Amino acid sequence: MASRIMGPPAFDDAFIQTLDTLFAWRRDVRRFRPDAAVDPDSLRACLAAAQRAPSVGNSRPWRFVRVSDPARRAAIANSFSRCNAAAAEGYDAARAARYRALKLAGLNEAPVHLAVFCDDATDTGLGLGRASMPETLAYSVVGAVQCFWLAARARGLGVGWVSILEPARVTGILAVPETWRLVAYLCVGHPVEEHLDPELERHGWQAEDPRGAELFER
Amino acid sequence: MASRIMGPPAFDDAFIQTLDTLFAWRRDVRRFRPDAAVDPDSLRACLAAAQRAPSVGNSRPWRFVRVSDPARRAAIANSFSRCNAAAAEGYDAARAARYRALKLAGLNEAPVHLAVFCDDATDTGLGLGRASMPETLAYSVVGAVQCFWLAARARGLGVGWVSILEPARVTGILAVPETWRLVAYLCVGHPVEEHLDPELERHGWQAEDPRGAELFER
Repeated sequence: MASRIMGPPAFDDAFIQTLDTLFAWRRDVRRFRPDAAVDPDSLRACLAAAQRAPSVGNSRPWRFVRVSDPARRAAIANSFSRCNAAAAEGYDAARAARYRALKLAGLNEAPVHLAVFCDDATDTGLGLGRASMPETLAYSVVGAVQCFWLAARARGLGVGWVSILEPARVTGILAVPETWRLVAYLCVGHPVEEHLDPELERHGWQAEDPRGAELFER
Repeated sequence: MASRIMGPPAFDDAFIQTLDTLFAWRRDVRRFRPDAAVDPDSLRACLAAAQRAPSVGNSRPWRFVRVSDPARRAAIANSFSRCNAAAAEGYDAARAARYRALKLAGLNEAPVHLAVFCDDATDTGLGLGRASMPETLAYSVVGAVQCFWLAARARGLGVGWVSILEPARVTGILAVPETWRLVAYLCVGHPVEEHLDPELERHGWQAEDPRGAELFER
């Protein structure tokens, strides 16, 4: 059957406005209610949204791993503690004190942990689109994370992206193929608190950098 | 004033359903109406949405460059042609013929071109969150691209991500700092046609890979 597509629906002004509100409330959450379980249907819907992400050459290289085993979770938390301590030591004393006062992950409270990998060994897509920019394979996984995050936020869930980890060690802890590269480690759950401003601004880590908002012209 | 935040609005079922529809219709567009201009207010709104992306350590390293100069656009198109020809030569004869039959970019038709860079030299964020995973800086830029893309689609605009380019050469063509790394080159405009299925599936490049949809358990 010929696919005579009539086009997408018109997204009306009310939807667009709410979408912009969703973008604004998509924050990185580090404080979760440990007792508030994530509804399995909601989680499934968020993972389905992730599938809609663009991927280079339609390679779909994302691999989602739910981490439930307490021993593996403890090993992940250890990796975070190690990296976090090392990162603090990279700052001068005053800045290090401020760094240590920040809460940078909700690993101990979040009911759902998702490790998201890029399958570097995939041949899906036959390499299309990534000969000159191979990094676009991992970028595709980031797209999936973004879709997941927005879908979660719309469903009342908070997501926190933990990057203070040793990627190769996470691969080992989770016993996934060595060709799976860690892109994101996500904490998912119901937030304890909600904010419109980034945590790092609120806690005085830094002011906002306006350069990202500039449109350069060439 | 103390920021007593009451939390985000409840996103209702109708919104969530339309959001899922938006994810489904966010496709990579390569066929644009060259005569249909992009409304400046819409473009501004999409760029504002991009600012809402998560970024590692709140570094906001994205740099958006609109490319309007015909000579620069021609040089970009040349880079694409060169990369595309080289990519085709990497396949066997039958596959190369199929590759050459694909339309992989709308550079000549899209009224708006945006080059999106990662400012590798930024010190915003003071390195927070990227000591052990420095690639998260570029990942933050991908998040901004995703927000832009969804905001554009909601406003009736199509976006195509061109990765068949020589990144260092694009940096040179656009005369931006050498520390700006090309993450995405976006074509933006009104689509000629709309599809729910990926172009590469429709044109028989490959079937869908189901592995991305699996939830692995550990």
